[in-house]
Amino acid sequence: MQDQMVYVAAVTVLGVLEQGYFSLQVIYARRKYSVSPPSITGPPEFERVFRAQANCSEYFPIFITIMWVTGLYFSQAVASLCGLLYLIGRFQYFQGYSKSALGRLAPLYFSAKMLWILIGLSATGIINYMCRLNLGVDFLQYLMGFLQV
Amino acid sequence: MQDQMVYVAAVTVLGVLEQGYFSLQVIYARRKYSVSPPSITGPPEFERVFRAQANCSEYFPIFITIMWVTGLYFSQAVASLCGLLYLIGRFQYFQGYSKSALGRLAPLYFSAKMLWILIGLSATGIINYMCRLNLGVDFLQYLMGFLQV
Amino acid sequence: MQDQMVYVAAVTVLGVLEQGYFSLQVIYARRKYSVSPPSITGPPEFERVFRAQANCSEYFPIFITIMWVTGLYFSQAVASLCGLLYLIGRFQYFQGYSKSALGRLAPLYFSAKMLWILIGLSATGIINYMCRLNLGVDFLQYLMGFLQV
Repeated sequence: MQDQMVYVAAVTVLGVLEQGYFSLQVIYARRKYSVSPPSITGPPEFERVFRAQANCSEYFPIFITIMWVTGLYFSQAVASLCGLLYLIGRFQYFQGYSKSALGRLAPLYFSAKMLWILIGLSATGIINYMCRLNLGVDFLQYLMGFLQV
Repeated sequence: MQDQMVYVAAVTVLGVLEQGYFSLQVIYARRKYSVSPPSITGPPEFERVFRAQANCSEYFPIFITIMWVTGLYFSQAVASLCGLLYLIGRFQYFQGYSKSALGRLAPLYFSAKMLWILIGLSATGIINYMCRLNLGVDFLQYLMGFLQV
Repeated sequence: MQDQMVYVAAVTVLGVLEQGYFSLQVIYARRKYSVSPPSITGPPEFERVFRAQANCSEYFPIFITIMWVTGLYFSQAVASLCGLLYLIGRFQYFQGYSKSALGRLAPLYFSAKMLWILIGLSATGIINYMCRLNLGVDFLQYLMGFLQV
């Protein structure tokens, strides 16, 4: 299993580093706009950074979960590539949201699209896996053969 | 390992879809009650939907973690069944909380009960696994034999 | 894979129990300071407990993820030991933050240090794993041999 997941694991560590970077930005914003914990309200500039980090944190476990399931049941290469694109989208979302509420939208839609692709692929992989396990039929392999991949 | 976890993985994808549904409900509530990001305060109707989603998001990683550990060290069938019941409980919690603060309580207690069952089973499975690994004794197998399962 | 990760799984269950304890403390604080859901604002005593739990919840998926990746690609023993120390740090953070905003700092730095160690070790383990897989060179084994471990 480790051999099969090493690139997904590498993207996972990158994702953790990205979350660490976002957390540091909140600490800097707290200092810059004098918002001491436990308060989470302040000038819109602070609240945007705070909400950007909160939103990324909220989606982090969903992202990690679905990337690993896709890696395990569909394809490691596709899972780690979509994962990398998701992390790039999230970085742009954080930068955009820090500047303006509007700036968060385009990268938010992009990273949501990556999640939906991962959800679709993992569902496909799992259904195919169950068919192979219970019926002995591997639809994905037929399809790959048909498309001459 | 993939063979052993395919039903747990299927429940995981369902859980991710449920979180996606809750997130969409928050977006609709933001539009309906005119609460623009980054603000998270507004009429109680909005705040209930927002808090319902926040609470489900908060428990999502705990739920996924404990379901997978139960699947790995106790039983896939039991883990995926409890997981499915948890997701149903969470769906009713979200619907109930959207209507009234009181409406969240019964399904919240139900989904908490599912988590406690998963915690108990995973702990049992891990302790039994350690005993088998270090002492060569498999208590669960003795128990199953004793109960004629 | 199960044999290799049983101690990491045990620390994971402890972590879930710790999160359960923190959640119960928020429920008690809601009763004590009469802050009914969905409200999340109230006297500083309540807000500190609430933020302490929110912060621990936010870091929980990051912690679990990086501990498992370290266990899979570096060493189970080191991963579960760092994980245990992290959980102790988080417990002291919660107790400290409940008393005063200042009381959270020392244990927060300690648990952050544990996370950084896990990030460093998992990255080392993954890079070494990729080198072994693609180049057939296992740097960590050379290093261990060199240090006569």
